[in-house]
Amino acid sequence: MSPASPPTVPPNGAPAGSPEPPPASALTHWVLTLSCPDRPGIVHAVAGLLAAHGGNITESQQFGDPLSGLFFMRVQVESASPRGELEEALAELAGRFSMTWALDVAGRPMRTLIMGSTAAHCLNDLAFRQRSEKLPVELVAVVSNHTALADLAAFYGIPFHHVPVRRDTKAQAEGRLLELVAELDVELVVLARYMQILSDDLCRALAGRVINIHHSFLPSFKGARPYAQAHDRGVKLIGATAHYVTGELDEGPIIEQDVERVDHTRTVDDLVALGQDVERRALARAVRWHAEHRVLLNAHRTIVFR
Amino acid sequence: MSPASPPTVPPNGAPAGSPEPPPASALTHWVLTLSCPDRPGIVHAVAGLLAAHGGNITESQQFGDPLSGLFFMRVQVESASPRGELEEALAELAGRFSMTWALDVAGRPMRTLIMGSTAAHCLNDLAFRQRSEKLPVELVAVVSNHTALADLAAFYGIPFHHVPVRRDTKAQAEGRLLELVAELDVELVVLARYMQILSDDLCRALAGRVINIHHSFLPSFKGARPYAQAHDRGVKLIGATAHYVTGELDEGPIIEQDVERVDHTRTVDDLVALGQDVERRALARAVRWHAEHRVLLNAHRTIVFR
Amino acid sequence: MSPASPPTVPPNGAPAGSPEPPPASALTHWVLTLSCPDRPGIVHAVAGLLAAHGGNITESQQFGDPLSGLFFMRVQVESASPRGELEEALAELAGRFSMTWALDVAGRPMRTLIMGSTAAHCLNDLAFRQRSEKLPVELVAVVSNHTALADLAAFYGIPFHHVPVRRDTKAQAEGRLLELVAELDVELVVLARYMQILSDDLCRALAGRVINIHHSFLPSFKGARPYAQAHDRGVKLIGATAHYVTGELDEGPIIEQDVERVDHTRTVDDLVALGQDVERRALARAVRWHAEHRVLLNAHRTIVFR
Amino acid sequence: MSPASPPTVPPNGAPAGSPEPPPASALTHWVLTLSCPDRPGIVHAVAGLLAAHGGNITESQQFGDPLSGLFFMRVQVESASPRGELEEALAELAGRFSMTWALDVAGRPMRTLIMGSTAAHCLNDLAFRQRSEKLPVELVAVVSNHTALADLAAFYGIPFHHVPVRRDTKAQAEGRLLELVAELDVELVVLARYMQILSDDLCRALAGRVINIHHSFLPSFKGARPYAQAHDRGVKLIGATAHYVTGELDEGPIIEQDVERVDHTRTVDDLVALGQDVERRALARAVRWHAEHRVLLNAHRTIVFR
Repeated sequence: MSPASPPTVPPNGAPAGSPEPPPASALTHWVLTLSCPDRPGIVHAVAGLLAAHGGNITESQQFGDPLSGLFFMRVQVESASPRGELEEALAELAGRFSMTWALDVAGRPMRTLIMGSTAAHCLNDLAFRQRSEKLPVELVAVVSNHTALADLAAFYGIPFHHVPVRRDTKAQAEGRLLELVAELDVELVVLARYMQILSDDLCRALAGRVINIHHSFLPSFKGARPYAQAHDRGVKLIGATAHYVTGELDEGPIIEQDVERVDHTRTVDDLVALGQDVERRALARAVRWHAEHRVLLNAHRTIVFR
Repeated sequence: MSPASPPTVPPNGAPAGSPEPPPASALTHWVLTLSCPDRPGIVHAVAGLLAAHGGNITESQQFGDPLSGLFFMRVQVESASPRGELEEALAELAGRFSMTWALDVAGRPMRTLIMGSTAAHCLNDLAFRQRSEKLPVELVAVVSNHTALADLAAFYGIPFHHVPVRRDTKAQAEGRLLELVAELDVELVVLARYMQILSDDLCRALAGRVINIHHSFLPSFKGARPYAQAHDRGVKLIGATAHYVTGELDEGPIIEQDVERVDHTRTVDDLVALGQDVERRALARAVRWHAEHRVLLNAHRTIVFR
Repeated sequence: MSPASPPTVPPNGAPAGSPEPPPASALTHWVLTLSCPDRPGIVHAVAGLLAAHGGNITESQQFGDPLSGLFFMRVQVESASPRGELEEALAELAGRFSMTWALDVAGRPMRTLIMGSTAAHCLNDLAFRQRSEKLPVELVAVVSNHTALADLAAFYGIPFHHVPVRRDTKAQAEGRLLELVAELDVELVVLARYMQILSDDLCRALAGRVINIHHSFLPSFKGARPYAQAHDRGVKLIGATAHYVTGELDEGPIIEQDVERVDHTRTVDDLVALGQDVERRALARAVRWHAEHRVLLNAHRTIVFR
Repeated sequence: MSPASPPTVPPNGAPAGSPEPPPASALTHWVLTLSCPDRPGIVHAVAGLLAAHGGNITESQQFGDPLSGLFFMRVQVESASPRGELEEALAELAGRFSMTWALDVAGRPMRTLIMGSTAAHCLNDLAFRQRSEKLPVELVAVVSNHTALADLAAFYGIPFHHVPVRRDTKAQAEGRLLELVAELDVELVVLARYMQILSDDLCRALAGRVINIHHSFLPSFKGARPYAQAHDRGVKLIGATAHYVTGELDEGPIIEQDVERVDHTRTVDDLVALGQDVERRALARAVRWHAEHRVLLNAHRTIVFR
């Protein structure tokens, strides 16, 4: 909704002498995310700024965290203003409210690199959704320490990079990954059942840009062979957790979780097979929400504006 | 968020010369719901109005329906302004935007009358939640065409009214109900497995204020004995649907639905027993959302700002 | 469990003088399904027959339907007896109990033909599960009235047959399908979002061998554009139903159903995209259970021995 | 199914010279559960024993655990044989197969004692289901270290025992509980949000007869304040776990688990309220399955013959 309402408006409700709305062709659909210390005036100030730039808000969500005292907001807005003008105005606003913010074109495919080992279900699922469900990512590379995924990557036309990892070559391999991230302007790295642990340095270098799918309902069953652990514990539901990767193994901020019912007849292998559905569902949602700028970090937790 | 941000603000971010915020004790927590034809300026105008009354927005949701061209909004706001002032300002705004709106104190228990026949699970559930989960309703009466629920009502301290219904006394019975609704300032009538069909006149008289729980996943299995119908069809999930009551049987706007898995071993009686869980869950959510003014009508569908 | 226990058994519990069990290599893992009028003696007779053939029961499920008076059973058994001997004994038993029965090698991939139009998600899902989750089917052909699925079929090495359908060529097209079913010894036909209605004759010819995925929670929203119907009705859950195809459109016996939560913000296109997950999940389960002989027909309903 | 099929049977399928079946009035519906080392012959032997006693099997489930090498079975059977005869035959069979077994009248209400502190939802739910859903338990006592539940117990006509617990009186309190268990022939103790930890001695004394509902998705968030832990970890689903109580806190065999979706807007108090639904659902199922002899212990895991 917007053009700044003039002081007076005739009964018919049409803003007096408001300029002709720009042709739709000239409009860009923006997504703005921001966060700052919570205090009066933020929503009004943001709405005012957007109104001043002929913005028409199509979606808006906000959350004030009473614990951290932080305020979070995501707004989708159509506007004819050039990016530069909007960014200038936002920078000024950010100064006043000690605000961190990001502006992107809504729906722009996020440049994404997928890392995998041998399990193909997450790669197959993401690549298929990118085609059939308009998952807003551009899959610029598949990196794997094995070659099993090469054909699948080829079928989807994604360049495949075989980067073997041995204890003595791990640093090298991570170096190669960082090179690719730089060369390909990678914005998001997805660990699609990549069975290697990233070094702390790499986690720091890519902080907030790496999503992993862990095949358990975290914090249950961290680390290796979670399905074997779950089977041994005799749980009645198995789960999967999509989370940002941090230096602490399986401790990163959770983006999405899902579960599936199992019973005593299921072997560990059954759980592994059943789990594939839960894993790809949770991962696909997390990637979509991240790519749509719906996930905001709130210390070690996430806000998901679904 | 709010008091209208003054033109300039010192770097420290504190609004220059902004008045001392009123003592929390003086603040009222309001919930405002509104809807109007979608057009630019609504959010900005609403945020401005609230800012002008020292409002601090704690929750805000909106939805523009591209099909109906209508805009819907729900805002929770803390403000020290007296009700009269807010209503006056809202009335003026409503005029400009051809807006329908409602203002209430957030969390105020809604005066609710429950109608039942013999099944106790929905009444027991609502009454228990009212106590243990702060379901924001005040249960002012239980009305039944049987006496089976009298003891349960008594245990929860809810006045019980036995209003028998025979074909020849139906009009009378509905008259009695309307009397009670008037006498007791009833805002919401809940049909908690009340096994009588309301007349069109009654539906019209209480339009938008009657919630029914139907024991099927509508539109499947309308009318009588839905579990028997579901069993005969061999469905693998049974469901329940909470909806507003209209003159068309089981065709009213859906507020909430839920399901439960069943298999071939289940008899009709099993489905009836299993269904009680789904029914009370769906009904309790619908009643909570309605009582919290989270449900807005959009023609024959609902918007639920959860 | 089995070889018929001899009259006396030494305390150690080992059958006295029982013959050496045959080498595992010689054992075949059978799955036996049967149904007959319910009466005393069936389980005992079946267990006895299997025991007499050195059968070791690894899985067994049964159901007596009080309504139809029919008894249904599924048994997995390891035995070294040649197929001929088992079938002879079963034929004799069947005579005594007016039993219909089927014997197959457990886990034998079922020869399956997939029909699709343009939507690829179900084909992609089944083909992927066949590889990664050991879905026990052999995909012998993809038949489509369009060419959109040709590449995907090729990737999975499944022969693709383009069989266009126009009103005036429909009979011809169905004739071609029946030819393929015969030529390829097809046991199961899966309508994976095939957007054509099969003729009554074809339904009869393939009765019990055609599984369709309908993109609604049947019996809601039969026929065309179920997501548009669901959106218009304002449902809060969308569903999918996998069922056997009969002459009555969308009325065949239900094998599996699943649902997914939606809200008022979802457009019809959103429902279509979200529904793809539910459709492929429900279809994959139905195909697996059918291929594992876990689905028995009980008039117009199914028994699923999961 | 049954009477032992004689060597020859006439074509009409009626067992030759089989005695008239006893009048239904004379039949008892038994539930038999057993477990023993897995080996050939068990199912056949059990079916034969029941057949020899004119048993008509109405439900039968079995599971052979490849890991423990144990076989588990649950059979419901109608028979006119006196209990003594059945038990004698079972004792003989048990000797041959090193079998542990239990025989009970199907549907017999299990004598159950409920322990609670102040939270009423689980007690209210179990007591209500006992009435409305034929939960097969007889609630013989409510024991609490507070008095908050006295009225609710009274409403349902369950004797209430106030047994305060202070550090220095804990042993005394547990002694009182054991007295009540003995006096009242208690078969099952349900910890319905009882906020005290039982001593190892008590756990041993009541091993396999105490079900606790833990308000988290175990093994996540053991110990105190699980919802606060869950909130801090930022999980997207909260859960509840019904399990047998052992000396190791929250480590007992899991009977049932369930979950509910939450998001970033939920406070710890919200989780506590939302969790009540999940807790009572999981607990009610666990109690029903235990009371119906559907739960068999397999070392530190459970087999649930649903």
